[in-house]
Amino acid sequence: MTEVTESGAGWLSREDMDSARERLPILYVDAVPVRVDDHGTVTAVGLLLRIGEDGQVKRALVSGRVLYHERVRSALLRHLEKDLGPLALPRVPTSPQPFTIAEYFPTPGVTPFHDPRQHAVSMAYVVPVEGDCAPQQDALELTWFSPYEVREPTVLAELANGQSALLLQALAHCGV
Amino acid sequence: MTEVTESGAGWLSREDMDSARERLPILYVDAVPVRVDDHGTVTAVGLLLRIGEDGQVKRALVSGRVLYHERVRSALLRHLEKDLGPLALPRVPTSPQPFTIAEYFPTPGVTPFHDPRQHAVSMAYVVPVEGDCAPQQDALELTWFSPYEVREPTVLAELANGQSALLLQALAHCGV
Amino acid sequence: MTEVTESGAGWLSREDMDSARERLPILYVDAVPVRVDDHGTVTAVGLLLRIGEDGQVKRALVSGRVLYHERVRSALLRHLEKDLGPLALPRVPTSPQPFTIAEYFPTPGVTPFHDPRQHAVSMAYVVPVEGDCAPQQDALELTWFSPYEVREPTVLAELANGQSALLLQALAHCGV
Amino acid sequence: MTEVTESGAGWLSREDMDSARERLPILYVDAVPVRVDDHGTVTAVGLLLRIGEDGQVKRALVSGRVLYHERVRSALLRHLEKDLGPLALPRVPTSPQPFTIAEYFPTPGVTPFHDPRQHAVSMAYVVPVEGDCAPQQDALELTWFSPYEVREPTVLAELANGQSALLLQALAHCGV
Repeated sequence: MTEVTESGAGWLSREDMDSARERLPILYVDAVPVRVDDHGTVTAVGLLLRIGEDGQVKRALVSGRVLYHERVRSALLRHLEKDLGPLALPRVPTSPQPFTIAEYFPTPGVTPFHDPRQHAVSMAYVVPVEGDCAPQQDALELTWFSPYEVREPTVLAELANGQSALLLQALAHCGV
Repeated sequence: MTEVTESGAGWLSREDMDSARERLPILYVDAVPVRVDDHGTVTAVGLLLRIGEDGQVKRALVSGRVLYHERVRSALLRHLEKDLGPLALPRVPTSPQPFTIAEYFPTPGVTPFHDPRQHAVSMAYVVPVEGDCAPQQDALELTWFSPYEVREPTVLAELANGQSALLLQALAHCGV
Repeated sequence: MTEVTESGAGWLSREDMDSARERLPILYVDAVPVRVDDHGTVTAVGLLLRIGEDGQVKRALVSGRVLYHERVRSALLRHLEKDLGPLALPRVPTSPQPFTIAEYFPTPGVTPFHDPRQHAVSMAYVVPVEGDCAPQQDALELTWFSPYEVREPTVLAELANGQSALLLQALAHCGV
Repeated sequence: MTEVTESGAGWLSREDMDSARERLPILYVDAVPVRVDDHGTVTAVGLLLRIGEDGQVKRALVSGRVLYHERVRSALLRHLEKDLGPLALPRVPTSPQPFTIAEYFPTPGVTPFHDPRQHAVSMAYVVPVEGDCAPQQDALELTWFSPYEVREPTVLAELANGQSALLLQALAHCGV
């Protein structure tokens, strides 16, 4: 999950955000970027390569916080553009119904999802992207995998925070 | 619902199809064509204007039969292209999960949906279309309505077979 | 929406909660309590009668905050038991996928949903209840309406915060 | 999938049904029977043990045809009662929205699902059952597995017709 302090936006100091994170579930969105053919069948899944706070390289889905007074769809689009660049042309779903919710707990083992910093509840969406993706900021690379390749244990093992479970749920939802 | 004999495909004579229709539920797909903005919010809904078998002009959703050995997504794309033309650029959903199913009964009143010719069970999808729509075949026109206009009682009353109920379910699903 | 400070739980002082409400979206769950027959068809919808902070009597869905380190399903069950009593026997859904999300904004008109106190994002579920409901705490009464009665404009008008829109989305999702 | 001629119901002779099966997709329902705790979390999944037409013992989900003029929910309840007995107390979902559709093709490899007899399109539901299950007719046994046990390759390998894929989709949908 991306660093979310958004201090540039001026809504919350890092101290206040840290304090909130210890006492409230924080609202997130997760997006699984996919390529589709003209029948809507998923042909590839995109994973980001990031350097985590611990210096380790990890793969990740597009993920980030919903801000105060921000629509969920706007947060989804903002994080997709931030991570995939301005020419990615993401197709944000028409329905606000997520395919699932992922509950990231600070305590490992409560759910498949884990975030040492906070209790985050994320609404998860599959998002077709049609344009050119150019990873931004702290993302080193976006790699496209076929639905078969992405299920390889070596690939799944590179996903942090239990996002491999979320990825498999997304593939199941798409029937691939 | 469109005439579905598909005699050109040679799979079923009209007599055999008529016979099947009296004894088996027939599998259909329904598509609600929509225009969306870059946040995925529905800005307009497209309704077809058709001349029914009784000579009456009626509005309709894109609807048609799934053929033997045809994928549901292929049927969806085929009917969208047939009704909206080859340049409509429909975005068939990534998930096969329909937002609802519509059960059209030959007997009125069993469900909100009615089809005097048959018992049809239709999987229903909301489909964004991005290109130029040019109604084909027996469709006279495609009209775009805002989510507010399309709820007008006069518009809903022009939808045949109970499809006004399906349209309202689609709008509810999209949160507009 | 219910008063959510949960001060008894000791998680957050009222001042801290008020402060968070001004700067973060707060995570909620909404439940639409229903009676179903043995085919799963919704036969009745339950609405609470509450006295609001302004002294006005209003109808409401079951609604409340998700606490820090609380599972979404636990929050759903907790609020159902709090509002409907310990013998209601709610059937919490097997899937965490909500039928929709409701975004309550402090500014009216951004979405159909409004909450003057905060920006709340609520995951919404339809929940069959099989037992005896006895409204608790600030709820005066639980009234069961048929799917037809509950759509009466006079009933819908009694729902506060735009929850009439959420109720109609729930009915559309259930196909009634 | 169960034998579906339903000749006792008098709807269709075996010859007519065989003929239809060669030329039309046949409408099915699939149900994944589950045990849930009071939070709605799936604690066990039920699989039937059947003797197939080839004399081999196989595991299966509850599955069967939708009849002419039959509601989808009625078909679901009828097949659950037929396979699990009259005291199973299945909780048919409130929404007609299936968690996915499974397309069984007579040709292997088109989709994960295969049925040598026919092209069947099945709407799939997860159904909590609360009562005592007593397998009926051609089902030898109903076995409950934990969500972990049921994912064992030896268990999945016993499911015929690609239903292991459907089972995994159901588990993903339930978040277990």
